[in-house]
Amino acid sequence: MTKLTHKAAGTFAIAPTPFHDDGRINDKSIDRLTDFYAEVGCDGVTVLGILGEAPKLEGSEAEEVAKRFVKRAKNMQIIVGISAPGFAAMRSLARASMDAGAAGVMIAPPPHLRTDEQIEAIGTDIPWVLQDYPLTLTVIMTPAVIRKIVMDNPSCVMLKHEDWPGLEKISALRAFQKDGSLRPLSILTGNGALFLDFEMERGADGAMTGYAFPELLIDIVRLSKEGRRDAAHDLFDAHLPLIRYEQQPGVGLAVRKYVLQKRGVIASSAQRKPASSITATAKSEVDYLLSRVARVDKRANLQPQSSAAG
Amino acid sequence: MTKLTHKAAGTFAIAPTPFHDDGRINDKSIDRLTDFYAEVGCDGVTVLGILGEAPKLEGSEAEEVAKRFVKRAKNMQIIVGISAPGFAAMRSLARASMDAGAAGVMIAPPPHLRTDEQIEAIGTDIPWVLQDYPLTLTVIMTPAVIRKIVMDNPSCVMLKHEDWPGLEKISALRAFQKDGSLRPLSILTGNGALFLDFEMERGADGAMTGYAFPELLIDIVRLSKEGRRDAAHDLFDAHLPLIRYEQQPGVGLAVRKYVLQKRGVIASSAQRKPASSITATAKSEVDYLLSRVARVDKRANLQPQSSAAG
Amino acid sequence: MTKLTHKAAGTFAIAPTPFHDDGRINDKSIDRLTDFYAEVGCDGVTVLGILGEAPKLEGSEAEEVAKRFVKRAKNMQIIVGISAPGFAAMRSLARASMDAGAAGVMIAPPPHLRTDEQIEAIGTDIPWVLQDYPLTLTVIMTPAVIRKIVMDNPSCVMLKHEDWPGLEKISALRAFQKDGSLRPLSILTGNGALFLDFEMERGADGAMTGYAFPELLIDIVRLSKEGRRDAAHDLFDAHLPLIRYEQQPGVGLAVRKYVLQKRGVIASSAQRKPASSITATAKSEVDYLLSRVARVDKRANLQPQSSAAG
Amino acid sequence: MTKLTHKAAGTFAIAPTPFHDDGRINDKSIDRLTDFYAEVGCDGVTVLGILGEAPKLEGSEAEEVAKRFVKRAKNMQIIVGISAPGFAAMRSLARASMDAGAAGVMIAPPPHLRTDEQIEAIGTDIPWVLQDYPLTLTVIMTPAVIRKIVMDNPSCVMLKHEDWPGLEKISALRAFQKDGSLRPLSILTGNGALFLDFEMERGADGAMTGYAFPELLIDIVRLSKEGRRDAAHDLFDAHLPLIRYEQQPGVGLAVRKYVLQKRGVIASSAQRKPASSITATAKSEVDYLLSRVARVDKRANLQPQSSAAG
Repeated sequence: MTKLTHKAAGTFAIAPTPFHDDGRINDKSIDRLTDFYAEVGCDGVTVLGILGEAPKLEGSEAEEVAKRFVKRAKNMQIIVGISAPGFAAMRSLARASMDAGAAGVMIAPPPHLRTDEQIEAIGTDIPWVLQDYPLTLTVIMTPAVIRKIVMDNPSCVMLKHEDWPGLEKISALRAFQKDGSLRPLSILTGNGALFLDFEMERGADGAMTGYAFPELLIDIVRLSKEGRRDAAHDLFDAHLPLIRYEQQPGVGLAVRKYVLQKRGVIASSAQRKPASSITATAKSEVDYLLSRVARVDKRANLQPQSSAAG
Repeated sequence: MTKLTHKAAGTFAIAPTPFHDDGRINDKSIDRLTDFYAEVGCDGVTVLGILGEAPKLEGSEAEEVAKRFVKRAKNMQIIVGISAPGFAAMRSLARASMDAGAAGVMIAPPPHLRTDEQIEAIGTDIPWVLQDYPLTLTVIMTPAVIRKIVMDNPSCVMLKHEDWPGLEKISALRAFQKDGSLRPLSILTGNGALFLDFEMERGADGAMTGYAFPELLIDIVRLSKEGRRDAAHDLFDAHLPLIRYEQQPGVGLAVRKYVLQKRGVIASSAQRKPASSITATAKSEVDYLLSRVARVDKRANLQPQSSAAG
Repeated sequence: MTKLTHKAAGTFAIAPTPFHDDGRINDKSIDRLTDFYAEVGCDGVTVLGILGEAPKLEGSEAEEVAKRFVKRAKNMQIIVGISAPGFAAMRSLARASMDAGAAGVMIAPPPHLRTDEQIEAIGTDIPWVLQDYPLTLTVIMTPAVIRKIVMDNPSCVMLKHEDWPGLEKISALRAFQKDGSLRPLSILTGNGALFLDFEMERGADGAMTGYAFPELLIDIVRLSKEGRRDAAHDLFDAHLPLIRYEQQPGVGLAVRKYVLQKRGVIASSAQRKPASSITATAKSEVDYLLSRVARVDKRANLQPQSSAAG
Repeated sequence: MTKLTHKAAGTFAIAPTPFHDDGRINDKSIDRLTDFYAEVGCDGVTVLGILGEAPKLEGSEAEEVAKRFVKRAKNMQIIVGISAPGFAAMRSLARASMDAGAAGVMIAPPPHLRTDEQIEAIGTDIPWVLQDYPLTLTVIMTPAVIRKIVMDNPSCVMLKHEDWPGLEKISALRAFQKDGSLRPLSILTGNGALFLDFEMERGADGAMTGYAFPELLIDIVRLSKEGRRDAAHDLFDAHLPLIRYEQQPGVGLAVRKYVLQKRGVIASSAQRKPASSITATAKSEVDYLLSRVARVDKRANLQPQSSAAG
C-alpha cells in the first residue's frame, strides 16, 4: 500500500486484537475483522494500539498480528502502534510492519523521553502518527508542543487527536497553519467519537477511533464534509447514548468486543488477562441501547451473522 | 431546615457562585439562583463545591455565600462544600453554615489524610456527604473503601457518587446493603449527569450535579422512579448532546454560567480569575445544541428573561 | 530593602511560620526567627512557601505574616511566596508585601495555567522567583521550558531550583547563558540541601532551603565559592545524615520545627492542623543525629536557649 | 535452592542486567556478577526488577536471564521480578524461574488490579515478595493495606519496603505483629539504602537494594543486628554521600553500572535504549565521591580488575 501522508483523511478504525477464548490470537477473526472494515468503507485501520492490548503481546506475536492485518487489507492503509519500553522492540516492529506493507506507525510520546530520540531509533524514513494522549497526566500536549514536535520531525504526518475533547486545540492548530507556523498535517480525532460532530466542524480531517459501528464514523465524516450539518448531528445524536456508554474507563474494550461479537465480526469477546469485563446487567444495558439506536439506524438492529469467524 | 439524613433523595443542584463582572460576589444573583432552583422543584442545593470556585473565596466570603443561600432557600436543603487545606477553616465554615440552617456539609477525602481526622475536626454531630472524586488519581475509592469510610463514620449520610461512571460501583454498594455489610446510605450521582439514565436504574436515589437544566434532572429522576424507562431515556437522550458538551474538562463551568445567564438566572457569566472561558465559536456551538434540544424540550428554547438579577 | 535582581546570591533561608500551641500565629517567634537568620548571616529569607503552611492561612493572616518578617528583617531581603488559587489573592498579597518592603515574590507555575497570565495578574513591575517544583508530576520544567519562561517574563530574576536533584539542569542553564540564549539569572537551589555540595560546583549562586542549620548552608556556599572543595565536602558530609533525615516526605517540617524549637528560635513546634508530626522514636533519632553532627560542628551541640520567644 | 520463607533476612542485592555495548545480554557478565555477589557474602539476589531493565527484555530473554542467575548462584537465593502487563507472561516467567530453582518471585501491585487475581494467575504455591512502590502515586500502600494483602495471600512471605522512607511504616507493621493482627513477614528495605541505618533499628530484617557496594549493606545489617549502633552509623555515614548520589531519579542505574564496571564486575555499563546516561562531569563527581569513601572504607579504592568479564 501507499505510505501515509499529511493528506490522509476519512475514517481509520482502531482495531481490537481478536483472541480465542483461551487467549491465543485468532487469525481468522483478524481476517474477518479486516474484511469488515473494508466492506463498510474504512480508509484505514490502526492496529496494536492500547485498544489492541498490545502490551500483552510478545514481540513476535505483535509482528505477526501487524503483518496479518496488512496482508488482508485491500485498499485500506494500515497504521501500526509501536509504542514499547525499549527502542529495539519499537524499531523491530516498525521495520517489519513497513516491510510487510504498512502505511505508517503510531507513537505515543512517553513521559520522560524526547520524541526525536524515538524517531531516530525507528528511522526517519517511516511516516508516523503522533498520538495525543492526555490521560497519563505527565505529558500535556498543548498546541505549541504539538507544533514543535511536528516541525522538528519531518516524518510526522498525522496527529491522532485524543485530548478530551480539545475542540479549541483543533482550532488552534488550524490557526497555526494559516499563520504559516505549522506545516500541513492530517488531524484524525479519537476520544471514542464523543465529540466527532463538532471536531469535524472545527477542521478535523476525519476519525480514528474504535467505536463498534465504524459505519457511523464514516457517515458523520462524509455528511460533515458535505456541509450537511443537521443531518450529521441527527445521525450522530442517535448513536451518542451508545458512544457515551463505550467511553467508560476500563469498560470500553469489553463493550466494543461484545458488540463486534454480536455483529458476527469476531468469534470471541475474550481479552488476554488481566481483562476488563462487563456484567450481565451491563450487557442488557448495551442491548437496550442498541435497540434504541436501531430505531434510527437499522445497522444497529443486530442479528448475529452465521458466518462468524472461528 | 431539617438536617440531611440517609433518606435524602431527588435532585440537588450544584450551584455556581455568581459574581459581578469585576469579581465581586453578586448577592442578588445568589437570591435569584436560589429562587430558580426552588421554582423548578429541586429538593436541595449544594454550594461551594469545585463548580462554585470555592478555593478562590476568602474564608469570610465563603461563610457569607453559604449563609445567603441558606437564608433564601425555601423548602430546599442546602449542603455546603467545606473542603479546605486547614482544619480550622473547615470547622469554621461547617459550624457557621449549620448554625445558619444548612442541612449538611460535603467533604472530599484528601490524598494523604484520614477521613476520621477530618470529621473529628469539624465535629461528629454534623451530617456530611462523602464526595467520590476520582480525577485526583491519588484517591481511588473502591466500593470497599467507601463502605469502610461510611461504617467508620456514623455522621456520613450520603455519597456523592462521582466516579466516571461507576455503574457497577452503585450496584456493588447496593449489594453491600443487601448482605448487611453496609448501612443505609443516600446515593446521589454526579458525573455531570452523563450517566444519570442508567445510574437511576442501578439504584441511585437521585442526582447531584450542575447541569444548567436542573428540570431535566428532576424529570429523569421522577420518570425513572415511576418505572417509565423509555420515557426517561427519550427525554435524557434529547439533552445528552448538551450534557456531553458541558463535560469538557476546563470548559464545563464556563458553559454552565453562559447558559444560566442566557436563562436570566444569573446576571453575569464572570468567573474569578484565573477563569476558564469559552470562545465565540463555542458559544455558537452551545446555541446550536440548545436549539436542537428545544425541538424536544421547550424549556431549552431560551428567550433571555428581562428580570435577570443584577 | 532593595528589590531582588538577577545578581542575588548567597543563602536565603526558607522560614516556617511559627504558631502558638493553639494554632495562633506567634509574632514574637517571627521576630526571634528573623533575628536568628540575620545573626547567622543569611542574605535573605523566603516566607510563606509550602514549608510555611501558607495554604492554611487566611489572606489577611498571610499579609500580616509577610509584613512582620519584612519589618523585622535587617540587611536581609524578604521573598514572599504568593501562590494561591485565585489571582486576586495573589495580587493582593504581592502588592501588600512589596509596599511593606519585600524584595520580591515567589511563584510556582500551576498545572494548567500560563505563567504570563499569572505575572500579568500581579503586575510586571514586581521581581519574582520561578519555583521549580517537580513533585506535582504535571509540570515538568525542562531547561528549555525554564528558558522560555524566563525570556518571556523580564521581571523573573531568579530560579528556585528544586528538581530532585537536577545537577545536569544547572549545567544546561549555565550553558544556555554561555551561548547567549538565556539572559542572566540567579539560581538558588532547594532540595533540602541534599545536593548543595555539587550544585554549587555546577554553578549555583547559592542556597534557598529550610534546613534547620542555615549556618551550614552559608558555610558550604562560602567554601565552595572560595574553591575549597574538600573543606566544603568535609563539612557538608558531617551534616548529610541529618539533611537526609529531614528530607522524608511528610516529616520534614516537623523535624525542622523540632530542631528550631530545640535551638530556642521558635517557642513551639506546633503546626496548624492537619499537621505532620514526629514520634518519640523519631525525636530520639534526630537527637542522635544531632549528637553525631556535633562531633564535627559544635553548633549542633544544642543547649536550648533560655531566651526562647514566647 | 530452598524456597523463600518469612524467615528470610540479610542482604539481597538487586542486580542490574548486564549487556554488551550493542545491547545483547552478556552471559559472562551475569556469571561474574553472580559470583561477585556470592563472594562478598550476599544472602540472595533479586533479578529482573526495574533496575534490571526488565520491561525492555523479550519474554524468552527474561527467562534466560533468570535461569542463568539461578544456575550460577551458590548458596544464594534468587528472587525473580515478574511484573508484566499480561498474566500469561507473568505466569510463564514465574513457572520457568521456579522450575529452574529460584527461591521466589517479586510482584508490584498495579494501579487498577487486585493482588489476589495476580496471585491466582501465577499460582498460590509460589512464595512471593510484595513490592512496596510509592512513586506511581496511584497505589499508596499504607500499613493497613499491606496487612490486608499479606493476610489475604498466604504465599506472600516478604515485603520489599520501598516507601520513601517509611520508618514509621516499619514500626507500624511490627506493632501489628505484636498485637497479633499480622502474621510473621520478612521485611527487607530498598530506598537505595538511603535510610538503611535507621530502618534496621526500626525492625527491618535486612536490605534489598542495588547499591554498588553490597558489602556495605551486609556490614550495616550485621553491625546493626549486633547492636553496634555507632559503628554501624560511622560506616554508613562514610558511604552516604555516594548512596545519596545514586538516588538521583533517572541517573541511579547509570551510576551503578559505571561503578560496577569500574569494579570489574560487569564488562560494559551499557543499557538498552532508551537509556539513562551520565556525563563526564557526573563521572568525575562519582570518582571524587569514591576517593572520599575510600579514606574510610578501602573497598572503595577502585583499581579496575583485569579479570573483567567480557
